[in-house]
Amino acid sequence: MSLLIKHGTVINADQSYAADVLCEDGKIVALEPGISASGIDTVIDARNCLVMPGGIDPHTHMQLPFMGTVASEDFYSGTAAALAGGTTMIIDFVIPSPGERLLDAYHKWRQWAEKSCCDYSFHVAVTWWDESVHDDMGTLVRDWGVNSFKHFMAYKGAIMADDGVLTQSFPRALELGALPTVHAENGELVDYLQKLLQKKGILGPEGHPQSRPPKVEGEAAQRVIQIAGILGVPLYLVHNSAIESVDAIAAARRQGQRVFGECLTQHLLIDESVYYDKDWNRAAAHVMSPPFRPKAHQEALWDALSGGVLQTTATDHCCFCGEQKEMGRENFAKIPNGTAGVEDRMAVLWHHGVNMGRLTANEFVALTSTNAARIFNIYPRKGVIRVGADADLVVWDPALVRTIRAETQHQRVDFNVFEGMEITGAPAYTVSNGRIAYADGKILAAVGSGAYVNRPAFPAYIQAQVRQNGRHPLRSVPRSAGNGADGRL
Amino acid sequence: MSLLIKHGTVINADQSYAADVLCEDGKIVALEPGISASGIDTVIDARNCLVMPGGIDPHTHMQLPFMGTVASEDFYSGTAAALAGGTTMIIDFVIPSPGERLLDAYHKWRQWAEKSCCDYSFHVAVTWWDESVHDDMGTLVRDWGVNSFKHFMAYKGAIMADDGVLTQSFPRALELGALPTVHAENGELVDYLQKLLQKKGILGPEGHPQSRPPKVEGEAAQRVIQIAGILGVPLYLVHNSAIESVDAIAAARRQGQRVFGECLTQHLLIDESVYYDKDWNRAAAHVMSPPFRPKAHQEALWDALSGGVLQTTATDHCCFCGEQKEMGRENFAKIPNGTAGVEDRMAVLWHHGVNMGRLTANEFVALTSTNAARIFNIYPRKGVIRVGADADLVVWDPALVRTIRAETQHQRVDFNVFEGMEITGAPAYTVSNGRIAYADGKILAAVGSGAYVNRPAFPAYIQAQVRQNGRHPLRSVPRSAGNGADGRL
Amino acid sequence: MSLLIKHGTVINADQSYAADVLCEDGKIVALEPGISASGIDTVIDARNCLVMPGGIDPHTHMQLPFMGTVASEDFYSGTAAALAGGTTMIIDFVIPSPGERLLDAYHKWRQWAEKSCCDYSFHVAVTWWDESVHDDMGTLVRDWGVNSFKHFMAYKGAIMADDGVLTQSFPRALELGALPTVHAENGELVDYLQKLLQKKGILGPEGHPQSRPPKVEGEAAQRVIQIAGILGVPLYLVHNSAIESVDAIAAARRQGQRVFGECLTQHLLIDESVYYDKDWNRAAAHVMSPPFRPKAHQEALWDALSGGVLQTTATDHCCFCGEQKEMGRENFAKIPNGTAGVEDRMAVLWHHGVNMGRLTANEFVALTSTNAARIFNIYPRKGVIRVGADADLVVWDPALVRTIRAETQHQRVDFNVFEGMEITGAPAYTVSNGRIAYADGKILAAVGSGAYVNRPAFPAYIQAQVRQNGRHPLRSVPRSAGNGADGRL
Amino acid sequence: MSLLIKHGTVINADQSYAADVLCEDGKIVALEPGISASGIDTVIDARNCLVMPGGIDPHTHMQLPFMGTVASEDFYSGTAAALAGGTTMIIDFVIPSPGERLLDAYHKWRQWAEKSCCDYSFHVAVTWWDESVHDDMGTLVRDWGVNSFKHFMAYKGAIMADDGVLTQSFPRALELGALPTVHAENGELVDYLQKLLQKKGILGPEGHPQSRPPKVEGEAAQRVIQIAGILGVPLYLVHNSAIESVDAIAAARRQGQRVFGECLTQHLLIDESVYYDKDWNRAAAHVMSPPFRPKAHQEALWDALSGGVLQTTATDHCCFCGEQKEMGRENFAKIPNGTAGVEDRMAVLWHHGVNMGRLTANEFVALTSTNAARIFNIYPRKGVIRVGADADLVVWDPALVRTIRAETQHQRVDFNVFEGMEITGAPAYTVSNGRIAYADGKILAAVGSGAYVNRPAFPAYIQAQVRQNGRHPLRSVPRSAGNGADGRL
Repeated sequence: MSLLIKHGTVINADQSYAADVLCEDGKIVALEPGISASGIDTVIDARNCLVMPGGIDPHTHMQLPFMGTVASEDFYSGTAAALAGGTTMIIDFVIPSPGERLLDAYHKWRQWAEKSCCDYSFHVAVTWWDESVHDDMGTLVRDWGVNSFKHFMAYKGAIMADDGVLTQSFPRALELGALPTVHAENGELVDYLQKLLQKKGILGPEGHPQSRPPKVEGEAAQRVIQIAGILGVPLYLVHNSAIESVDAIAAARRQGQRVFGECLTQHLLIDESVYYDKDWNRAAAHVMSPPFRPKAHQEALWDALSGGVLQTTATDHCCFCGEQKEMGRENFAKIPNGTAGVEDRMAVLWHHGVNMGRLTANEFVALTSTNAARIFNIYPRKGVIRVGADADLVVWDPALVRTIRAETQHQRVDFNVFEGMEITGAPAYTVSNGRIAYADGKILAAVGSGAYVNRPAFPAYIQAQVRQNGRHPLRSVPRSAGNGADGRL
Repeated sequence: MSLLIKHGTVINADQSYAADVLCEDGKIVALEPGISASGIDTVIDARNCLVMPGGIDPHTHMQLPFMGTVASEDFYSGTAAALAGGTTMIIDFVIPSPGERLLDAYHKWRQWAEKSCCDYSFHVAVTWWDESVHDDMGTLVRDWGVNSFKHFMAYKGAIMADDGVLTQSFPRALELGALPTVHAENGELVDYLQKLLQKKGILGPEGHPQSRPPKVEGEAAQRVIQIAGILGVPLYLVHNSAIESVDAIAAARRQGQRVFGECLTQHLLIDESVYYDKDWNRAAAHVMSPPFRPKAHQEALWDALSGGVLQTTATDHCCFCGEQKEMGRENFAKIPNGTAGVEDRMAVLWHHGVNMGRLTANEFVALTSTNAARIFNIYPRKGVIRVGADADLVVWDPALVRTIRAETQHQRVDFNVFEGMEITGAPAYTVSNGRIAYADGKILAAVGSGAYVNRPAFPAYIQAQVRQNGRHPLRSVPRSAGNGADGRL
Repeated sequence: MSLLIKHGTVINADQSYAADVLCEDGKIVALEPGISASGIDTVIDARNCLVMPGGIDPHTHMQLPFMGTVASEDFYSGTAAALAGGTTMIIDFVIPSPGERLLDAYHKWRQWAEKSCCDYSFHVAVTWWDESVHDDMGTLVRDWGVNSFKHFMAYKGAIMADDGVLTQSFPRALELGALPTVHAENGELVDYLQKLLQKKGILGPEGHPQSRPPKVEGEAAQRVIQIAGILGVPLYLVHNSAIESVDAIAAARRQGQRVFGECLTQHLLIDESVYYDKDWNRAAAHVMSPPFRPKAHQEALWDALSGGVLQTTATDHCCFCGEQKEMGRENFAKIPNGTAGVEDRMAVLWHHGVNMGRLTANEFVALTSTNAARIFNIYPRKGVIRVGADADLVVWDPALVRTIRAETQHQRVDFNVFEGMEITGAPAYTVSNGRIAYADGKILAAVGSGAYVNRPAFPAYIQAQVRQNGRHPLRSVPRSAGNGADGRL
Repeated sequence: MSLLIKHGTVINADQSYAADVLCEDGKIVALEPGISASGIDTVIDARNCLVMPGGIDPHTHMQLPFMGTVASEDFYSGTAAALAGGTTMIIDFVIPSPGERLLDAYHKWRQWAEKSCCDYSFHVAVTWWDESVHDDMGTLVRDWGVNSFKHFMAYKGAIMADDGVLTQSFPRALELGALPTVHAENGELVDYLQKLLQKKGILGPEGHPQSRPPKVEGEAAQRVIQIAGILGVPLYLVHNSAIESVDAIAAARRQGQRVFGECLTQHLLIDESVYYDKDWNRAAAHVMSPPFRPKAHQEALWDALSGGVLQTTATDHCCFCGEQKEMGRENFAKIPNGTAGVEDRMAVLWHHGVNMGRLTANEFVALTSTNAARIFNIYPRKGVIRVGADADLVVWDPALVRTIRAETQHQRVDFNVFEGMEITGAPAYTVSNGRIAYADGKILAAVGSGAYVNRPAFPAYIQAQVRQNGRHPLRSVPRSAGNGADGRL
């Protein structure tokens, strides 16, 4: 099965150049100008188009059981929507209930994900702590290709990890060569403010941002960065939405701490006024955590992307339809949290980033694909167009003009936060594992055509951290680090 | 002429992997494991070694006429020393005297540089302003491969560019697609403090740092960043040595401003106590601007390198022998400013950076080569090991232990600021343009074997800046930007 | 001549308490509850009122010759308006033309000011430099009660002081025990941007803020703070209007540097949208430097006031009527710069500060009177209600509701930037030198009833600076400091 | 009983001037030059001396039961030592055990304190939470003169208040018009690091600072400031020792948040090297929390004092003798935490602050007395020399040279952290409640001569906060605030 993309301009994170791309058996096998089309099964004409690495969305929640319901997007529909948007891999989340074995939850999610039509992988959440969690973390890293663990500092009384859990889990992750990731919001404050609002009779969607002001996020970001810094552990903060957390990340990086930051496309473009929409349904449709912020935060996020403070873009794609959102009609705290985005991430970022001069096209590739691949240690298998890499790519038409509409989207949800936004630049074709998975507005990928991606432990930055910790008597140095480092530096 | 490097681990800025490297006619032509050695002219066994892109030192001053004398290192001896240290390209400076035509100075330097034995290029300094400067900038960019212009905010009464010159030169550079670079020290303050010290009878080398305290640098860095920000022009700050200037760069990047920062290896390791050495000769040997700083500044520089605030490492290599330094025996302000470093930059950074866990090996490559190539728009011709790139590389033996000594160095100067430092990791071979230029401690490159490197205008980040400026009515948008951008995005 | 204020609550910067206030011969002579009214010439009933120190406006320009015209407010009308607003002292500016002897200018202004009806004093501007300036500074301090010198970093080609002048003037001021004050805007940038705007055909009032963006102010503030820090000289920055300059002051104070900051009431309440008013006259009426800013800057200024980053409030009162503003009809750069405010400062700050909970009443007193008195070393003669102090005070009715209108103001100008603002809290009576100067909306003070206030050198903070400089060999220590310090600590 | 202090220079926070001070019945009754000594019981000749408000130490722990022992200093010996140092009032702490009623603990401490020989008051700690704590807070404010509540973020498993307790207690305090105070260290991290150190066999005193690095304090400071900011509650942070916490306070004040910061004299002068003393006893004698820090932190604390970021100086005076410290011979975590200082605070601050030019004498008074009086709402009864104020003052001899020695101190402990420090400037006499309490190196005050000081609720800054909260729907506005504010503004 061979595929040739001709006449396009290849855009990688480090450079742009004209070249044809030949794919065979799911891999890129040649990359140069003037590759002959003779004997090739399928040929794409990419004249006037850009050929970029397929997007990686490092933050999605397909068919998540959450807040008494289940996200409307399953692993097939969600990955299909991803492909329609140029994204060829997602990293979703295994979220054990407190008390549930991590391995049990992991296998449950693996089964759910079998119908995915693009490649996928899993972060596993640490939502509680005992010896079994410690042990399962080891098994997951060694045997199941997991190299990142998620911690929620919010959702008190449910999946919240307090400082005690963090101080157990972070050094354990480092010891295994895995990266801790964190949802930073102070759960105690959210709980206090929710109750206060309810007492004051504020029960509508406006209560959502009021119970989670920017400082609630900034405090937690600041705290967890300090904790990671003291313990000598790299850190990845998901969905930074506030000036406060961006500033905390910038300050830590300025001090040489290995902290990575993610940003959702939604937070870049939407502000908190949506929660004051007179139409309850529209307001509720925007309920997600962290919530949308006053406008000044958006500009700060853009600045952080172009200035290198944030490294990845994601969506926290987690869909709930109008009837699900209705669960919180009487109390905003019961509105299922989540918005869609996996289909629109790249086009929205291209239009408002590259077209507006905030980003170069190369930076766009880094922010939508390469950096996630490097941080989560699947580079250069993913995240770059190069001989030997997976044939996951998108043929991007920079002149294609499109209006985003819930009506015409592939996402399985009845709302779109970008409704009516006109954007220039969108996928003409998406190629997954060497096959055309999306073209002419249609999903061509088959149910289950995506594969699970093992992510090895000990990326280079963790190895460097381990060498550095070796000079600090108080920090853990895994016995296995030497091996992990072999031949890979 | 073919050269094969076998059994090494290739280290690029983005990844590390085992591969053999085949070079022919000065280019890399194959890069994969198991390349056959049959028929190859020269084979290097790189077992247990790393194969990295040759270093680029973006800041040297060979045979510079300065302060009444001429730097002791000429373009041959200096580039030979560079090769001995793994560096295969330098970017030196053309510095016109006030009133001198830029083109005249440029051709003078080109002639001097003909004997270089590694590749080279030139920044051109704007030390004064009139219409001819404006016009010559255009000629240099269009016809002579110059894409960066240097400005000295210090050296009052000599080559200092005041704010009036900066506001003329910066928009002109942008219009041409070139990058302004700046030496940031407040020349008025230096002048005031020098005179004050002389009045107080402080005439020894300790007067040097006292007349140029960190705030003198920080003020100028802060100022020029604001000026560039207001004008909408990217900026490159050379030799940042102080917490104050690093903070200014970090703040600007945090706000999305396109500012790049360079750091000298010397400033990373040496502190200001050297100026209080009782041996005048030793103290004077360390006189350079900016001067060495109290120790806290060093840690801040390391943090800034690993946190991405600074992007390049350089040396400001500018050698003066003891007898030249004697010119300032009675007055520190007359000691020729400059120290050597081009030979030691990479080994010192490797030892204290990679071995200590501050940097990954990939980050080391980025900081010594790739980032400079990208910023000065000669990537991927330089700065990466890739098929099609120039065959400029270094075979690095990470186990080689060496003690730095002036006595055994190739640098043509009688002093070494790192004297006695034991480092682990050094070049086994340096390859320049596909030929072994250094091996077994010996320079093999011939006089004049280096070539001048044209650097094209309008790198991607300038194109993005131009798109962004298009949204600000007050900022200049070059008419030629559209063309510059064609096909390169 | 005796005056008794009964039943009021005295508000000082440090506390509030019920007491009657007895004034005789221009001084406060008793301060306690229950003072008998028998034999007193005049009695004010201050029931439900607050008795506060009269305001000190440290920044006014009465009848200033500027930009080809003369400010419409003379020293009588302007001080009358001050009294109507509760302000009992102004510090105006002597501004020599470049080349003009400081002493000559000083005496010219003294003469103009003789008709003032409240107390006054003068900062003297250093607009150029030679030996005569150096000498006149000494004479002014020693013989004429001047203890502060002003420097304009803007107004290139007119009164701008470049870094060379600053490095001469600042140490000279310290030596004399006087405080340097600064108008911080980068004059080179303003000049460049004005010309650029004119070239682009932007000639209306909107060109004014566009030619003086916040960074133009922030850069200069940052620069001059560094210069003062290096030279070891205290510093006072006038009319800070931008987040950038407030941040610079906060950072310097955080590092223990003796920097004071002033803020204009106008900048606290008005934003830059005024320059886009379709009515040219209204837009032009708001032209002053620094210009009004985007709204976020206002909140930052309020924060800086309540957090102690800024210490004084002023007005830069400088009136030009509509026909004067017409001079810039064809070119914003020719609109005479200035707005009124001396009459409204205190009421506006009370309403938006105290009533809104941003300030305590005590902080209000500090910010309108006490801090200026302390910084400019006329405390406790001014700035406090205390036995022995000058009987300059205001009887404040916190329940008085008033709407600000140009029509009804005492300021001699045809516009009011606060037009239509309803405020609660205003002066019932203003007492100047023990006499009722304003009551029932009427000015009662006679022409020339104000007196010139000598301000002695070497306030305590300068003495401390001198002790501190004694430990830094590079800093100037005035020979006279020992004496200056005697008995005053 | 009358006392006259003649010929001195009175130093208040706001000014300095020559005046005699007449005290009768414990109050200052006259303050002017040339008061006649006839008929006066006692006359002090203060020629060449300064007369300052007696110091207030807002942070002491006399006879505290802690870590299995009881502080060696009781309320008599401790207050006697305070008087010897010029301090005339302490604010100590009532620390209930978890589960203990606040009122019960309060009365226990009141009884212990009856033998005090200077005035005193109590902060009450909130170490746990239930309805009784809520109610007792009300009783303490209304009936027992308490206006501040303390929270320990450290000491996990003992008296630590987690974020849940803070969110209950802070709004309750505001509602009562009282100020929350906080010991900021992350107790979870301390616990984790102590256990880690013990596992690694680090059991000596060096383990103390290693288990409480600066970020452990900075994180907690940052966190609690955000919590207070969100809840709209003023905050007082005790014993800030680290750059990180000072920066957090500065940033909050810059944003207008009402945050106060305290600093211990010990942290200003002593660095962490003491914990590496080869003499275990000396090292252990320095064990206190937060621990002493690397030197850079000291300069930052001085800067914060002179720049207004920190407002008060204290000692956390808590004495344990060598045999008590022995309890931790095998494990640093069992060394009773605490050092002495109440006797040396003022002299050490004078010498290193005023003599060195970091502070004016007026700032010294503010930092040792006035600011504490204002923050804790006992001003102008305390904290100022003024007619009507308590006759608590110190006659300071600025020329007195003294060497600090444990041997000669009044503090009841066998060690002095300032041992051997020579200082210039010390009390000649201390006057408490109008009587000479200390003179000629001897304590003259009788056991029990000190009185309990009621501190009223609703200082002006809390009233302003309440007005401000009234504009934020989510913040508590006490029903009683209107009353609290009456007549006091």
